[in-house]
Amino acid sequence: MSEHREKAIQYVREHKKENLSSLKDFVALPSVSTDPAYIPDVLKAAEWVAESLRSLGMNNVKIYPTVKHPVVYGEWLEANNAPTVLIYGHYDVQPIDPIELWKSEPFAGNVIGDYIFGRGASDMKGQDVAVMSAVEAIVRTGKFPVNIKWMIEGEEEIGSPSLEKFISNHKEMLACDFALNPDSGMVGADYPSITYGLRGLAAFELKVYGPTSDLHSGLFGGVVHNPAVALAELIAGMHDSNGRITLPGFYDNVRSLSAKEKEEMARLPTDDAYYLDMTGAPALGGEKGFTPAERVGARPTLEVNGMISGYTGPGFKTVLPSHASAKISMRIVPDQDPVKVAEQLRAYLEKNAPITIRWELEDKQGGPASISNLDNPGVVALGKALETVWGKKAILKREGGSVPVVAQMQRLLGVESVCTGFGLPDDNLHAPNERQHLPTWYRGIETMVHFFFNLV
Amino acid sequence: MSEHREKAIQYVREHKKENLSSLKDFVALPSVSTDPAYIPDVLKAAEWVAESLRSLGMNNVKIYPTVKHPVVYGEWLEANNAPTVLIYGHYDVQPIDPIELWKSEPFAGNVIGDYIFGRGASDMKGQDVAVMSAVEAIVRTGKFPVNIKWMIEGEEEIGSPSLEKFISNHKEMLACDFALNPDSGMVGADYPSITYGLRGLAAFELKVYGPTSDLHSGLFGGVVHNPAVALAELIAGMHDSNGRITLPGFYDNVRSLSAKEKEEMARLPTDDAYYLDMTGAPALGGEKGFTPAERVGARPTLEVNGMISGYTGPGFKTVLPSHASAKISMRIVPDQDPVKVAEQLRAYLEKNAPITIRWELEDKQGGPASISNLDNPGVVALGKALETVWGKKAILKREGGSVPVVAQMQRLLGVESVCTGFGLPDDNLHAPNERQHLPTWYRGIETMVHFFFNLV
Repeated sequence: MSEHREKAIQYVREHKKENLSSLKDFVALPSVSTDPAYIPDVLKAAEWVAESLRSLGMNNVKIYPTVKHPVVYGEWLEANNAPTVLIYGHYDVQPIDPIELWKSEPFAGNVIGDYIFGRGASDMKGQDVAVMSAVEAIVRTGKFPVNIKWMIEGEEEIGSPSLEKFISNHKEMLACDFALNPDSGMVGADYPSITYGLRGLAAFELKVYGPTSDLHSGLFGGVVHNPAVALAELIAGMHDSNGRITLPGFYDNVRSLSAKEKEEMARLPTDDAYYLDMTGAPALGGEKGFTPAERVGARPTLEVNGMISGYTGPGFKTVLPSHASAKISMRIVPDQDPVKVAEQLRAYLEKNAPITIRWELEDKQGGPASISNLDNPGVVALGKALETVWGKKAILKREGGSVPVVAQMQRLLGVESVCTGFGLPDDNLHAPNERQHLPTWYRGIETMVHFFFNLV
Repeated sequence: MSEHREKAIQYVREHKKENLSSLKDFVALPSVSTDPAYIPDVLKAAEWVAESLRSLGMNNVKIYPTVKHPVVYGEWLEANNAPTVLIYGHYDVQPIDPIELWKSEPFAGNVIGDYIFGRGASDMKGQDVAVMSAVEAIVRTGKFPVNIKWMIEGEEEIGSPSLEKFISNHKEMLACDFALNPDSGMVGADYPSITYGLRGLAAFELKVYGPTSDLHSGLFGGVVHNPAVALAELIAGMHDSNGRITLPGFYDNVRSLSAKEKEEMARLPTDDAYYLDMTGAPALGGEKGFTPAERVGARPTLEVNGMISGYTGPGFKTVLPSHASAKISMRIVPDQDPVKVAEQLRAYLEKNAPITIRWELEDKQGGPASISNLDNPGVVALGKALETVWGKKAILKREGGSVPVVAQMQRLLGVESVCTGFGLPDDNLHAPNERQHLPTWYRGIETMVHFFFNLV
């Protein structure tokens, strides 16, 4: 091990408390990107990121405004004859509802046992701070070995609506050899992981309208098709009895799993028992004929993320609702196209919606799936780093989550992304009581130190 | 016309302003029975009713507490050799959500054009005050011609959970020849109506549980059956393609319509065009093979009154919800039994719910349907009164709404109810902008005056 690398690792081990305190400060900023009420807090989080980059000695640090939430950029390009890594991150977080299920303050970063709790602790403020802490350790103990650029956005949790345009408008500024994307996660605390495939996302809001206003279910029940029932019927028809999605042509472009991929996936510890334990569901569901790892990593899904109609308060109200709506999203896989998928959903509705209701489909931002080359120097450097810290070979996996930016960088900058991250599957991402496992997080910081040194 | 009757009618015509002002005061009390926040207001409404009865010279006026909201009783029994009429009413109202759709203050009783607007204006504070105004006109101008008792409850909009026990415990006090129930409505302003049949109600809350907590739809989509989708599938399966309800044995006890009933129903002006106009629905729905009047009056229905799952706030959240729930109610007809219907729903769920979810069914209060004899002296007196005021024969109809108390009185007191009321189908019952058509209401007060005189 080089002397600099050794010093940097030492520095990381001596600054656990400071790094954790930094994460705590970041989590305390309630940067919920989807809710307009939090706009000032989202901006504060952007400023916090910019200030952190400046303190790491980054140059040209700037907060770039977008139509909604800004992108923070910074760079350090003084390593000659060394590759340039573009570090992606996001400083925004999911909403905190249902608020009553949080056991501790969502925006406090309380440390209880081995965990820090709070919205964004794992997704992905914890990962942002892990990379920043590694970079800090290296710059405080010597000269940084490679060139780095940072692009930290504030709209990931709302589908990154501004990022494609931002990348497109700043191609030269963002030019790099490959990107590091720590917004992926680990299979388990003992399974260092590299993600080579990600599912894409296509999200929609479906609204069903019936009578002009809510009706008395006694006076009108029997002559009007209840919009809540009509919505239920449309949703129910979107899957067949084998758990397959019924939208016309939906599976036409789904890339089949190769024998090698099936073999690699079979090595994952994520079997039925694992998912039953992780979710607490009475029994597993999903598409028949595929293993859980295949269903999550390589098969498309359609979920209702939210649904509402009529009276939902205490007691009951014998109303026949005038309308019903559902937030519906699909996780798509190579080589599905989010635009085509939207057309397929529309075609399904045109074919199946009864004349008794009117419907509207709002197309929300989404992105295609992506797959990286396993020979990418970033992937190799990361694999080595994970093996050094964990003492075992990293798992190569395809993940169910969606990181549209990976596909955008591939298309617009011509670079692949190395996806990793030190969050665990039971971190309660997008749910109450989100947390980050701290022993894994400290290992993650050391891994990032090794990763940068492994690149030269 | 007797001199007393003439004077009473005159009195009514000279006191329109005072009667309207009285209704305004009553509507101003927000007596929402389903929401605990309104408990003090519900009590105030009970006191308002008791005070009104006292001012009419009623004896033994008392507010009887129940487990939830009290029943107001009062009587005047000094007419010898005359029948005794038990007047039913309720002083509670439905909630006002969605509040933002009200065009004027829901608890103000604003008069705009020919209407008074406000929650309860039509259902049924307007009807309570109509009967009180008629009684006032008669007692202020002479001696009341018949004996009357009043039973005004505060739990009708939550299924009258205490009333059955109250009637059962006060059989002697409530003894009468027949009951007047003005909680029914008219087909239209030009169609004076008597309701001889009412649908019953069976209401439920169905909860579907999947994973222990909300999950990230990317990390877990594909291995868990989405509870919102599972609920949609269960709801969708409750009707077949002919609009018939699929619960096992559901139609076994449904009484068929006689040829005479079909003939009477065919005379109603409530055809397809009528209901399309009333509801604004793109096309009518419901059970195939029956006319709209038959579907609403004499066929059972199943409605989703409310449904909720997952994230329903602004923007979107890619969550896989942990649970979903629906408020489901059925309108039942003679000779269906609400207890049996609950068993049929449970049997359906036991047969159709997948092993991937857990479910719970909460049985809310309901009541059976009822049908009255057309020779009942109350029905005859009311028919004559309506004909006098409107100058045309009253329509005999079966109504889709539910008045459990009618069935309870039949069973516990052995008396039939004469159902009427001066609300119109476009009064926005149980919906925003509830209103009462005032010209019809003034005619209603006169009708009630004639009704009491016609009984002797």
